[in-house]
Amino acid sequence: MDKKVYIFDSTLRDGSQAQGISFSVVDKIKITKKLDELGVDYIEAGNPNSNPKDREFFNEIKDYKFKHAKICAFGSTRRPGLKVNEDKNLNDLVNSGAHTVCIFGKAWDFHVVDIIKTSLEENLNMIKESIEYLVGLKKEVIFDAEHFFDGYKHNREYALKVLYTAKKAGANWIVLCDTNGGTLPNEIQEISKYLVKELGFDNLGIHCHNDCGMAVANSVVGVQSGIRHVQGTFTGFGERCGNANLSTIIANLQLKLDYKALPDEKLEYLTPTYNYICEVSNVIPDEREAYVGNCAFAHKGGMHIDAVKKNPISFEHISPYKVGNERKILMSEVAGRGTILSAIKRLNPSLDKNSEETKSIMKRLKELEYAGYQFEGAEGSFELLVRKELGKFKPSFELIEYKVIIDKPSTTDHSATAMVKIKVNGVLEITAADGKGPVNALDNALRKALEVFYKDLSNVYLRDYKVRVISGNKATSAKVRVLIESTDGVSTWTTVGVSYDIIEASWLALVDSVEYKLIRSNKEDN
Amino acid sequence: MDKKVYIFDSTLRDGSQAQGISFSVVDKIKITKKLDELGVDYIEAGNPNSNPKDREFFNEIKDYKFKHAKICAFGSTRRPGLKVNEDKNLNDLVNSGAHTVCIFGKAWDFHVVDIIKTSLEENLNMIKESIEYLVGLKKEVIFDAEHFFDGYKHNREYALKVLYTAKKAGANWIVLCDTNGGTLPNEIQEISKYLVKELGFDNLGIHCHNDCGMAVANSVVGVQSGIRHVQGTFTGFGERCGNANLSTIIANLQLKLDYKALPDEKLEYLTPTYNYICEVSNVIPDEREAYVGNCAFAHKGGMHIDAVKKNPISFEHISPYKVGNERKILMSEVAGRGTILSAIKRLNPSLDKNSEETKSIMKRLKELEYAGYQFEGAEGSFELLVRKELGKFKPSFELIEYKVIIDKPSTTDHSATAMVKIKVNGVLEITAADGKGPVNALDNALRKALEVFYKDLSNVYLRDYKVRVISGNKATSAKVRVLIESTDGVSTWTTVGVSYDIIEASWLALVDSVEYKLIRSNKEDN
Repeated sequence: MDKKVYIFDSTLRDGSQAQGISFSVVDKIKITKKLDELGVDYIEAGNPNSNPKDREFFNEIKDYKFKHAKICAFGSTRRPGLKVNEDKNLNDLVNSGAHTVCIFGKAWDFHVVDIIKTSLEENLNMIKESIEYLVGLKKEVIFDAEHFFDGYKHNREYALKVLYTAKKAGANWIVLCDTNGGTLPNEIQEISKYLVKELGFDNLGIHCHNDCGMAVANSVVGVQSGIRHVQGTFTGFGERCGNANLSTIIANLQLKLDYKALPDEKLEYLTPTYNYICEVSNVIPDEREAYVGNCAFAHKGGMHIDAVKKNPISFEHISPYKVGNERKILMSEVAGRGTILSAIKRLNPSLDKNSEETKSIMKRLKELEYAGYQFEGAEGSFELLVRKELGKFKPSFELIEYKVIIDKPSTTDHSATAMVKIKVNGVLEITAADGKGPVNALDNALRKALEVFYKDLSNVYLRDYKVRVISGNKATSAKVRVLIESTDGVSTWTTVGVSYDIIEASWLALVDSVEYKLIRSNKEDN
Repeated sequence: MDKKVYIFDSTLRDGSQAQGISFSVVDKIKITKKLDELGVDYIEAGNPNSNPKDREFFNEIKDYKFKHAKICAFGSTRRPGLKVNEDKNLNDLVNSGAHTVCIFGKAWDFHVVDIIKTSLEENLNMIKESIEYLVGLKKEVIFDAEHFFDGYKHNREYALKVLYTAKKAGANWIVLCDTNGGTLPNEIQEISKYLVKELGFDNLGIHCHNDCGMAVANSVVGVQSGIRHVQGTFTGFGERCGNANLSTIIANLQLKLDYKALPDEKLEYLTPTYNYICEVSNVIPDEREAYVGNCAFAHKGGMHIDAVKKNPISFEHISPYKVGNERKILMSEVAGRGTILSAIKRLNPSLDKNSEETKSIMKRLKELEYAGYQFEGAEGSFELLVRKELGKFKPSFELIEYKVIIDKPSTTDHSATAMVKIKVNGVLEITAADGKGPVNALDNALRKALEVFYKDLSNVYLRDYKVRVISGNKATSAKVRVLIESTDGVSTWTTVGVSYDIIEASWLALVDSVEYKLIRSNKEDN
């Protein structure tokens, strides 16, 4: 049996219909190139008829040399009553320059009659003539049978007529859409098997939505039933609850079921590609995402951690490295002392779980967690906490005072000015800097003051800055947690600060970032 | 056939093993009461042996009168080589006061031999004796056959021995666990059917994890194969990729498959319960969550919106109101002019899509989206934008100047002081206020100044304040988007501001909040 499954990514089209998603042309080109590198088969990039941004995209991508993927323009069948060559939507598809086009037509009689308000016969004509027109112009045509599963359940005969019409007209792929996402795996299985095995359809695709939390399962069950083309979005973004998540589907098909979706050597790019697309889409990656999420191989329960240390397969269904992810051991009260102890032992090998120092660290950890800290993602601050409790921390500087002034209207580009007064080994340094906002100004001023004493800090910069309101109900006086990711170009570390005041929280995380860097570059002092 | 499915929620136990989750005793009690009100059958509340917080919880909940749910304590079978009555873990379960206890034992030979390092025989004894001991003490015993599916695939004979041992020892429920989350629906179906139909097990449960994105599908397929007890967490939180999401499973079972999981009248509490548990857990609700997510019934594509207006079933697989959710129509470039036009028409019914005003609003909207604004969740700012473009906006005040000073060390509880100078109808008002952090100080000062002129503002307060870093790569000088939710006790509105400076972004959202409120309470002025 042929085990190749064709992967059709609609991040740039169906994905852009998700709440909060808005792609620029540059974003779209970045994502297109990344998906092409990964080795997906089709990239549906937009509807050249619907907005100028999509038209601009097709124009810009025209001369790009794809490694593997085919770029695909999306539109609908001709409108009721028009001739195909007079239909602007179809002609925009033809003129987009894309060799592959995907058009949707209705497969549910209710939609034909009640929504687009035409006859069942005319809908079949629209499908037939639109496909024939595009095939005649040498396009590869993918036909999305919209609402197919709902149509099949309500009027099976008509839904099948739609498929036969598309087949006869020459569509290269006929895609069964669960447009409203309401279909369950057992229904998908039964219907798909019938179409493939009884009716002999050999060029079917599937397009699922996640309204029942079943989009991945439905797609995989479809493939197991003989479907060989899967539409979805790489991250699962899409209208409402999203589209079928291709990163999960690809991993399931290839690692669990021995289908061929991507070249084998590309699987380890699944996690970086997921993070990249989230980043470009300006969406926070889902930590719990299957296979590619930051927590997908994170262990927190004490017994789990102990077992994974003995043998990872005890609590990992696959090796995280196969999909470019990695194992993480989390600090927390649930983790038990074992995990925290191994962090402590790195600093003082003579301590054990019954040592006074270990107990005092556990106590301090719980107090800080209670106050809103989370050390799970802030290993820099966690090490400093342990060092402080062990008496293995000497501050690199003493803050005497800071003052930040924010003015509006502002006399310069920079709305905030910060003055910082610090002492290092008894030597006073006063300096000031401005910045875009108070945190930026304070960061600039602190670094400027410290660089006088510590040259190592000159190559450090902040890579990411996250603000999390911990308790939203007190609005602007709610507590905030600030996470700062810093880098010196070689390594990266994260620190955390919590306060009712965003400036104070940022300050605490900034100070930890600096202290952690100085400890690392100058271990003998500590 | 009996259609009752027993729902077993492990938010407080397995859910607490998720990254970022840390429940206080008060949190646990809140969630317990909420789940009891909803009508779940079992609430697994923690391991009284593992940490003092869980012991405290069982102590505090002892006298609570449950409406429906049974509270359940979690632990393991006795340890190898111990007697049951000498095993501290088992005795902590007995002494927790919970009538129902859930204990796990290994069903995968590899775990027995390589991880807990005992003999296969002793593992069966541990299971047998632990269950018999608890049953003898009149406990209802739920036995979690940990790693059952992996065990079955590797050593079927031994995995079945574990089930028979638990059955013979008198376990009330025997739960098949996909502990590592690596099993796919077709395997679950085949194995569950075999156990129920061929081997006659009639008291099986299922416990799935989401490592393949299949936890919901696996649970539902399990029920369709004859399993009648489903373990999961209400929001899907849990170790790694999370547990089976009970909110989705309940809705699927009851609305799609006619099983009975909750009393019918409780289904409309699914969405509020989801939001409540997220809130107490301090986790941002997943907007795309099936059934209960904020976007689950949000429509953005232009054609979808038009169709839903004609008939909601066109793009909604169920009515959102059945699960306590609601329909949302989103503003955006993809939405097309139709949606934006209906917002415009509310302000000026004479305009149509070809009007110059409509075009200028569309243009402005795109400019602002490009600058990082999102109006999808900020209807207050969106209305102001439309009013401004239509010339239907008169500012309620003019900002002359503000200045915020942040001091550390601070001489008071409040680290920031803000001075605000505004003019209303030519009258100058200067005032100042302090606050916890600069945004809080500025908010306080602005309100203090405005209340002199507008008494209506005195009952307005901010309910939520969200900060989102839009482009993380420039760290503290990255752009931020601030969303503010305000309320006057009757209605609620959201406004947005974007800037490189968090103070400026907050200011913009604050000003919109005030202006929107004043328009609402004083329509004739506008």
